[in-house]
Amino acid sequence: MFGVTILGNNSALPAYDRHPTSQVVTLDQYQFLVDCGEGTQMQLSRYKIRRSRINHIFISHLHGDHYFGLPGLITSMGLLGRETELHLFGPSPLQNILDCILQAADTTLPYKLHFHPVTEEGMLVDEEKFSVETFRVTHRIECWGYLFREKKKPRKINKEAVTPYHLNATDFELLKEGKDITFKNGQVLKNETVTVANKPARSYAYSADTIYLESLADKVRNVSLLYHETTYLKALEERAAARFHATTAQAAQIATKANVDSLLIGHFSSKYEALDEFLKEASEIFPKTQLAIEGVTYRII
Amino acid sequence: MFGVTILGNNSALPAYDRHPTSQVVTLDQYQFLVDCGEGTQMQLSRYKIRRSRINHIFISHLHGDHYFGLPGLITSMGLLGRETELHLFGPSPLQNILDCILQAADTTLPYKLHFHPVTEEGMLVDEEKFSVETFRVTHRIECWGYLFREKKKPRKINKEAVTPYHLNATDFELLKEGKDITFKNGQVLKNETVTVANKPARSYAYSADTIYLESLADKVRNVSLLYHETTYLKALEERAAARFHATTAQAAQIATKANVDSLLIGHFSSKYEALDEFLKEASEIFPKTQLAIEGVTYRII
Repeated sequence: MFGVTILGNNSALPAYDRHPTSQVVTLDQYQFLVDCGEGTQMQLSRYKIRRSRINHIFISHLHGDHYFGLPGLITSMGLLGRETELHLFGPSPLQNILDCILQAADTTLPYKLHFHPVTEEGMLVDEEKFSVETFRVTHRIECWGYLFREKKKPRKINKEAVTPYHLNATDFELLKEGKDITFKNGQVLKNETVTVANKPARSYAYSADTIYLESLADKVRNVSLLYHETTYLKALEERAAARFHATTAQAAQIATKANVDSLLIGHFSSKYEALDEFLKEASEIFPKTQLAIEGVTYRII
Repeated sequence: MFGVTILGNNSALPAYDRHPTSQVVTLDQYQFLVDCGEGTQMQLSRYKIRRSRINHIFISHLHGDHYFGLPGLITSMGLLGRETELHLFGPSPLQNILDCILQAADTTLPYKLHFHPVTEEGMLVDEEKFSVETFRVTHRIECWGYLFREKKKPRKINKEAVTPYHLNATDFELLKEGKDITFKNGQVLKNETVTVANKPARSYAYSADTIYLESLADKVRNVSLLYHETTYLKALEERAAARFHATTAQAAQIATKANVDSLLIGHFSSKYEALDEFLKEASEIFPKTQLAIEGVTYRII
């Protein structure tokens, strides 16, 4: 399973029981928390997501609606007796803020909190099954997007086709990697005659808070699912730009340019109670658009 | 109207839709926020309490469940265009924490935030209609209780009794203050013959997080309403002491010793889902006890 669960879909001011930004990305047994607005620990309980499964947290930027729930979450993890290491990624000043908070409370966490300051674009986590990269977006302050990729899946062996060849374990590994086999007699077994392609590797890009940024399309090109903020409807394009935010139409244009499979929009201004118009405006430009709704898990396919 | 509205009644870990500590004390047109756990700004919206009416915030101590909602609240007040000065009282390290957070967000509040570090017991606010004092309690870290008093009410003039004396405005003021009037001919008009006492001044003491502390009774003597934490039922007295918290029985003993009119108990451990036993245990010792329930306003009479 690869998917993203929305815990908060509102912009700065909480309203209409919509919460500030937080998402959980699930990739098989792994769970990643992306941003952590105020109330995230309560939202995790509400949607029955186990805090203990989260070993990586990614913070996009240091506006409060994206991380004011973090001190509560990391101290609650401690109170619940967590011992597993926790990896936290975000802008450098976050370290000092958390240090001051923990020191004032005279709190020593019972687990190791590794803080990884994000300072340049590139790979942050590179594991066997997945990778996480970061890319810079343009907001009023330093702000980072995150790109989650499952690793390229090995090709599937066609058992029937392979039987006559008496292959060993090394041969099978080479075939799964897409390579041909050359026998001692010089004969070549072409990969595509005995394997079939597995499903393509999927990816999810979270582009955080950003002004309309054409270059973003290069950074998230061809991803399976792009989350792009739409703080405002298209009529408020000027206001969006003045506040380093984007509109429905702009998010849909980025999705089109980047050739993504589908688009998820969120970070709605508390100006708007109903959200239908967001979906309507974005879908007119990019039909495969969905609204980020709290508690809903969007599968990445 | 003098009363306290509960926004959060749970201890460190939010549970069963109970939130971390926060209360609003209302005294006629004044509203004071006492502690500000994570989610307080959402709780204020939920219970329709206008943020704009709050001009004083009092923080007892720097454990997260008592102030992690503060950065969100003060930045939201700014986003909503607040211009009125805000007075914040709490332990000294709070200033640096807030400074770091505002600096990282590149936020300049549109209103003046006056931080008043609490460093010794005594008077914090002394206005015409009310006063707020602070007193030290004993917790794992520096912790302060707050005592809200309405000012002594002037005596009421008995209009019928006073008519024959042809008094001027100064005479009326002296009578309201409880003084006698001496006429030019040396004749004395005794105060009690023409006035009656108004209702006695009421008071509310919030004793924050504290271990059982006999000396607390002196600090909150005779208050109209005492809020005392009861993190645990009486069976867990040892655990309470080890964690610098109190039990139902201990809160009720303090209320008895202090001769308060009534007792409000809260800060319930997330160990407990049902709260009936808290009320039962405390009431057996101090009958005029109430449970602090979120969204309920307890009138101080």
